[in-house]
Amino acid sequence: MGNGAREEILRLFRRGGDLVSGEELSRILGISRTAVWKQIRLLREQGYVIEAVPSRGYRLTSTPDLLLPAEIRAGLDTQIIGREIVYLAEADSTNLRASLLGEAGSVEGTVVIADQQSAGKGRLGRRWSSPPGVNLYTSVLLRPPISPRSAPQLTFLSAVATAWAIEETSGLEPQVKWPNDILLGGKKVAGLLNEMSAETDRVHFVVLGIGVNLNMQAGQFPQDLRYPATSLTLETGRPISRLRFARSLLHHLEGLYRVYLEKGFTPILLAWKNLFDLAGRQVEVDLQKRRLSGVAIGIDEDGALLVRLVDGSTERVLAGDVTPADS
Amino acid sequence: MGNGAREEILRLFRRGGDLVSGEELSRILGISRTAVWKQIRLLREQGYVIEAVPSRGYRLTSTPDLLLPAEIRAGLDTQIIGREIVYLAEADSTNLRASLLGEAGSVEGTVVIADQQSAGKGRLGRRWSSPPGVNLYTSVLLRPPISPRSAPQLTFLSAVATAWAIEETSGLEPQVKWPNDILLGGKKVAGLLNEMSAETDRVHFVVLGIGVNLNMQAGQFPQDLRYPATSLTLETGRPISRLRFARSLLHHLEGLYRVYLEKGFTPILLAWKNLFDLAGRQVEVDLQKRRLSGVAIGIDEDGALLVRLVDGSTERVLAGDVTPADS
Repeated sequence: MGNGAREEILRLFRRGGDLVSGEELSRILGISRTAVWKQIRLLREQGYVIEAVPSRGYRLTSTPDLLLPAEIRAGLDTQIIGREIVYLAEADSTNLRASLLGEAGSVEGTVVIADQQSAGKGRLGRRWSSPPGVNLYTSVLLRPPISPRSAPQLTFLSAVATAWAIEETSGLEPQVKWPNDILLGGKKVAGLLNEMSAETDRVHFVVLGIGVNLNMQAGQFPQDLRYPATSLTLETGRPISRLRFARSLLHHLEGLYRVYLEKGFTPILLAWKNLFDLAGRQVEVDLQKRRLSGVAIGIDEDGALLVRLVDGSTERVLAGDVTPADS
Repeated sequence: MGNGAREEILRLFRRGGDLVSGEELSRILGISRTAVWKQIRLLREQGYVIEAVPSRGYRLTSTPDLLLPAEIRAGLDTQIIGREIVYLAEADSTNLRASLLGEAGSVEGTVVIADQQSAGKGRLGRRWSSPPGVNLYTSVLLRPPISPRSAPQLTFLSAVATAWAIEETSGLEPQVKWPNDILLGGKKVAGLLNEMSAETDRVHFVVLGIGVNLNMQAGQFPQDLRYPATSLTLETGRPISRLRFARSLLHHLEGLYRVYLEKGFTPILLAWKNLFDLAGRQVEVDLQKRRLSGVAIGIDEDGALLVRLVDGSTERVLAGDVTPADS
């Protein structure tokens, strides 16, 4: 008993109809009335509002904005992504948890979600600020039949899915910043960190790490951010349902992943290019060992950024930090 | 107490001199005479032959060919490789154990050695036959500051180190088979399986998995091998010390890794090319989705195999199974 019984109780509440009696719950679940009552109490502790009408039964009147597996699944239409959902009240890093699940053989489509992260990871060992209760921190385990050289393509896939989920839940128009960020009006609203486990010839698994600032308030951002940041609530002036956002994201990830498996990278890259607004702009690229200045002229078929330098030559950038010089 | 006390006792035996008294051991280790006696008994159970001369003390007369960390370290001259050595009497797969240690933050140079593997891994999910007591199954954790695109280079590094250890301990002249095997007279004697954990821009860690058939007898090979296999003992007609081989391998890995960090891939590739005998020969390449026939004309600067096809064009093969057509 435990999670299973509570998921079943929630399912019975949502089946429609009016009230569900304690006796009915007890009979269907095959547990005692006392056990039913304990599960109801635990659901209330998780934030569910469950009304008790004396001698008639229980009614679910409000669901918390918790990212619980049962809640996410309730409105989810995917077959691969979310087949398993692991919710953690606190994680060191969802990417790390998903990697360990990957090593242990968890199925493709396993989703790890944490309410907060104590060691949220950004690119290149940077931190991702991860306070509790407000945002989405999730990592999706995939096992695509690709070589390690193709794995960077999946960053474009998760960028498009995240941008589409932002559009769908906020009505805003996000841009993608090559290669790993999603911006609203030039400010970072989401970050992506894809990691893989691979041998030379093939990928064992990829973890798509996605962090989205949903309801973060101005005072919650770290002081020392490299780039200006924002959240969906700051941009729209209203709260964003984490549950609705999570479902939208998993839905778009599934659709895009199916396209990728069937048609390859080209359609993903086309969708991504529609969200890319650096083309034609003057940029600075930090390559860790050196810096480049030039005009971003586009993206090639591998997803590398093409930068035209002052001398007229074109540099192909596979990894780096890009900033518009006019921002 | 435990491993530490036993390592210390072995160190005292080896310090030179003749006999070490139980009283001296008790005093130096700060444990009771009874405790000393227990440790001596455990050492004997591990295969150490320890002679007791009444009222004078103990003498170590023979060391088992066990791949115990203390034994390997006793004759090892490395600074990075083998900084930590984890010995497992039985592992599912040393690569899996090393990957989990990598995720958990273990230091660069950590070496995992198993006496046997229940799920020894070959390339592409194949099995690596791993009976107890006879061979070497090891995985080395490295954290090189490279991008995932460069990671396949480390397969060439472990191939050279393994070939050199074979030369040094057996006097035989191994060849490397592109990209992952070491052969003696056309038969497979060692296999390499490198795995990595990475994000788009950088490698978190690489695991160099190395399996070498040292003392395996003809009857111990699986029936359904894809390629003919052999062992050092079958080729030389004499037993091979696993300990000596392990030390030699770790020594060469260290030397080559230092060269790689300082000078890059070129010197590694040059050393590898000296061990490569397919150049100029007719080969068949199985690319999983299709097959190629042609003449192996060499290796390019990335380590890709160059194959000249009948139509005169050259195909660059990044991953695949190569077989000489004349074998």
